[in-house]
Amino acid sequence: MNGAESLLTTLTNNGIEVCFTNPGTSEMHFVAALDEVEGIRCVLCLFEGVLSGAADGYARMARKPASTLLHLGPGLGNALANVHNAKKGHVPMVNIVGDHATYHLEYDAPLTSDIEGIAGPVSHWVHTSKSPDDIARDAAEAVRQAGIGQIATLMLPADVSWGDNSNGPEEAVTVEGPAQVPESRIDEAVALLRSGGNSMIMIGGREVDSQQGLMLSRIGKAAGARVSTETFPTRVARGAGTAVIDRLAYLAELAIDSIKELDQLILIGAKAPVSFFAYPNVPSAIAPDSCNQFQLAGPNDDIDQVLESLLEKLDAVDVEPDVHPLDIPEPPSGALDANSAALAIAHFLPENAVVVDEAITSGLAIFPLTATAQPHDWLNQTGGSIGWGLPAAVGAAIACPDRKVLCLEGDGSAMYTVQALWTMAREHLDVTVVIFNNRKYSILEMEFGRTGARGGTPGPKAASTLDISGPDMDFVAMAQGMGVSATRATTAEEFNAQLEEALQAKGPRLIDAMVPTLF
Amino acid sequence: MNGAESLLTTLTNNGIEVCFTNPGTSEMHFVAALDEVEGIRCVLCLFEGVLSGAADGYARMARKPASTLLHLGPGLGNALANVHNAKKGHVPMVNIVGDHATYHLEYDAPLTSDIEGIAGPVSHWVHTSKSPDDIARDAAEAVRQAGIGQIATLMLPADVSWGDNSNGPEEAVTVEGPAQVPESRIDEAVALLRSGGNSMIMIGGREVDSQQGLMLSRIGKAAGARVSTETFPTRVARGAGTAVIDRLAYLAELAIDSIKELDQLILIGAKAPVSFFAYPNVPSAIAPDSCNQFQLAGPNDDIDQVLESLLEKLDAVDVEPDVHPLDIPEPPSGALDANSAALAIAHFLPENAVVVDEAITSGLAIFPLTATAQPHDWLNQTGGSIGWGLPAAVGAAIACPDRKVLCLEGDGSAMYTVQALWTMAREHLDVTVVIFNNRKYSILEMEFGRTGARGGTPGPKAASTLDISGPDMDFVAMAQGMGVSATRATTAEEFNAQLEEALQAKGPRLIDAMVPTLF
Repeated sequence: MNGAESLLTTLTNNGIEVCFTNPGTSEMHFVAALDEVEGIRCVLCLFEGVLSGAADGYARMARKPASTLLHLGPGLGNALANVHNAKKGHVPMVNIVGDHATYHLEYDAPLTSDIEGIAGPVSHWVHTSKSPDDIARDAAEAVRQAGIGQIATLMLPADVSWGDNSNGPEEAVTVEGPAQVPESRIDEAVALLRSGGNSMIMIGGREVDSQQGLMLSRIGKAAGARVSTETFPTRVARGAGTAVIDRLAYLAELAIDSIKELDQLILIGAKAPVSFFAYPNVPSAIAPDSCNQFQLAGPNDDIDQVLESLLEKLDAVDVEPDVHPLDIPEPPSGALDANSAALAIAHFLPENAVVVDEAITSGLAIFPLTATAQPHDWLNQTGGSIGWGLPAAVGAAIACPDRKVLCLEGDGSAMYTVQALWTMAREHLDVTVVIFNNRKYSILEMEFGRTGARGGTPGPKAASTLDISGPDMDFVAMAQGMGVSATRATTAEEFNAQLEEALQAKGPRLIDAMVPTLF
Repeated sequence: MNGAESLLTTLTNNGIEVCFTNPGTSEMHFVAALDEVEGIRCVLCLFEGVLSGAADGYARMARKPASTLLHLGPGLGNALANVHNAKKGHVPMVNIVGDHATYHLEYDAPLTSDIEGIAGPVSHWVHTSKSPDDIARDAAEAVRQAGIGQIATLMLPADVSWGDNSNGPEEAVTVEGPAQVPESRIDEAVALLRSGGNSMIMIGGREVDSQQGLMLSRIGKAAGARVSTETFPTRVARGAGTAVIDRLAYLAELAIDSIKELDQLILIGAKAPVSFFAYPNVPSAIAPDSCNQFQLAGPNDDIDQVLESLLEKLDAVDVEPDVHPLDIPEPPSGALDANSAALAIAHFLPENAVVVDEAITSGLAIFPLTATAQPHDWLNQTGGSIGWGLPAAVGAAIACPDRKVLCLEGDGSAMYTVQALWTMAREHLDVTVVIFNNRKYSILEMEFGRTGARGGTPGPKAASTLDISGPDMDFVAMAQGMGVSATRATTAEEFNAQLEEALQAKGPRLIDAMVPTLF
């Protein structure tokens, strides 16, 4: 058994079922091994940023990591932005990065680079396998390190891949579960919550599922505390029957205002809230100085344990949670804009859908309007690196073939990783993509004002860098060019009809929604 | 004057005329400064891999660096692959990477990352500016470091950008010219060349211009030595009137055979030849052990000085160089394939064109057939990281608005940075793109065999990762979706007509050339 076969066998023994790949010459023995080892689905992507985003979306929905296969340092570089997003969202990933044969590196061939150096900033664990006899053990360690929320990046030199592994593959390793939080610490939180004043409990981590949401609502009511998620929770259960939970605003000015009265802020898997960017005259830490911010649990701690313990300690088990009713708006009519599109999405969203949100400004109305829609999961952009949505939708659809994935994309953000559409077509993924085509980097127009640059008003050259009209992009043509059926909507009625049809059909569809800018 | 304005003024004082950009919130003061500082052309790209490749193509043709503007670590990550290619080609680049305000970093906002860590592996010089008073001085140093062939990456924290620079901008710095090679070393090379046996002189560096080529030919004839470029010279003058110079083969097997009789190999700006990848049973260093490889000059040494000195020492000044005649083939007829397409390109190539070659397997016949075409410059993929061609064509066209750029692209490689088409349309660039659409990663089919994986024959899963049909990509639709006029050619006659028309017209055109695989 060669190194590559022992690696793949070890991955499958550890429950890894999918490899998102864009291979090159140095990975050919890994590719060959796909036909020798049962149990790995190999999904080809045309660009590495697609496959790392897909690995993120997959892991969020499958609740376990996928593997990637990348071609040397530049391939990892192309994947880097979406690995960053996954890292910030506490999403596990096992990256396999091919490298030149160990003995070839000293010759500095064109594709030679410091791969460990590139991997370091976006990985929790980085390792280069030195021998075919090591690779299975190293792969098992990568899986263990990826564990419940880490990025593990393992370099696979070509000779380690093609050489004979006399040790054979590794069996399943024990992946550490989430860390337990000491009861004494939970008691401290309870005491804080009972100390009077204004309290908020903010939940974070890899996921807020519907049971956690309901527990949190009970706890909040029992403690007289507001409950909230972070601004961009990695995965959150929403819609009818889920708990009423706030979401911290993106705009620091609004977020600051929303928590300015807080005396204590209990953080469960969430980070202390900070401004997404720095702005002149806006503080970085946005809770008031007088607020006691108490880190009850980190993102890799056992959030279920913490919630269950709080429920008991606060006598909240029998408290009725605040729950969203099913309240679906009528479909809109007339002009198509961010608001009418949001109404249509809230109306037509099918039960159990997975919503992938990278619609930036045009998506702002969709989140509140879908709070009472059919139950669904919502995935957010966790690291701020644009070009995540279409790839994440690929991964979510592969993880959940029986659920409709609805991908909400800005036109600007779609263009970073537009090649994802091809993989949707190739794999017949059940994804409906809505492109909000306002022909602007609308968020940057707003941010230009917020930073106060040039008094908040861009001059002509600055304005041209925020404007992506001229030429106007035609996403119908681009999607069709990659094998995805697509239509353009210019009125609410057209959008309604196209969205309903796309969501009822099976397979990839794209709607190029022509909307004005929101601001 | 704020930091950003002092930075931009310093860049313009140092002759930097173009900034390829994809900005974000933390760069808004830089963007605002574009309207305050004269002399910088700002070119918006929809993805950072486009802009770094454009900066590469620009610098090769302008013979001076462009600036990039990138958004934090992930933006730099997206740019990384084409920065790698530029680095391997000794192409200068000044990267400006926005970062959070210095005081904001400790809060670990979503876009926070170790930018210096990401920059290090692809940069010769990395620096983070700490204060608005420093930024102009740091920018001047970045330009000096980029110099004649380096990657300089300067981080611009948002508060350094928006704060007041009391020192003002910097004037032009002195960029070190290429290093002189001691005459004694040149004498050593002459002695080697006169020592008998089989000799080759291999030239590398940032460029082999027509004068250098003619000098090299004279030198080779006088010394009885073969003359050659590296496999992928960064920029080389070719066509009628240029010198006859070999090119080292890509395939190690062929390259080894071509130099197996060498007794001495004199390297002028070139590296000792190595196999592009490692393969079982193929040596990494491909010159015979008995060959004396003499590094006469490095890529940043003064190659003109070396050639002029060799000319004199070898009494070669009056030797007639071997020069390519003008010999243009007839346009092809019948089937469209890699060979007939090459004939058409050799026939229609206009004088003074810039050819950007990332056609991989389908382009193999074009290089030899254009040796006697109209004079032109040829740019190669120097770092092996795919997705360079379309972006490099953008940059070359901006550097040389009066020259036709012909971009030869594989279908697979085009898809890494296909967003470059939009910038071609936006800037009305005079680029003709030919996509060789064979619906395969054909190079990888060949490489699979060369690596000997699975006996050289891919199984069904492996084969599927090398096959990019299903869905078939329609580059006409994609190009039109990004505002570029496009046509499809399925016969040699169609290709002739479309190529002639595209090369005679001004502005961006794409031809989707449907060709069978070469192997």
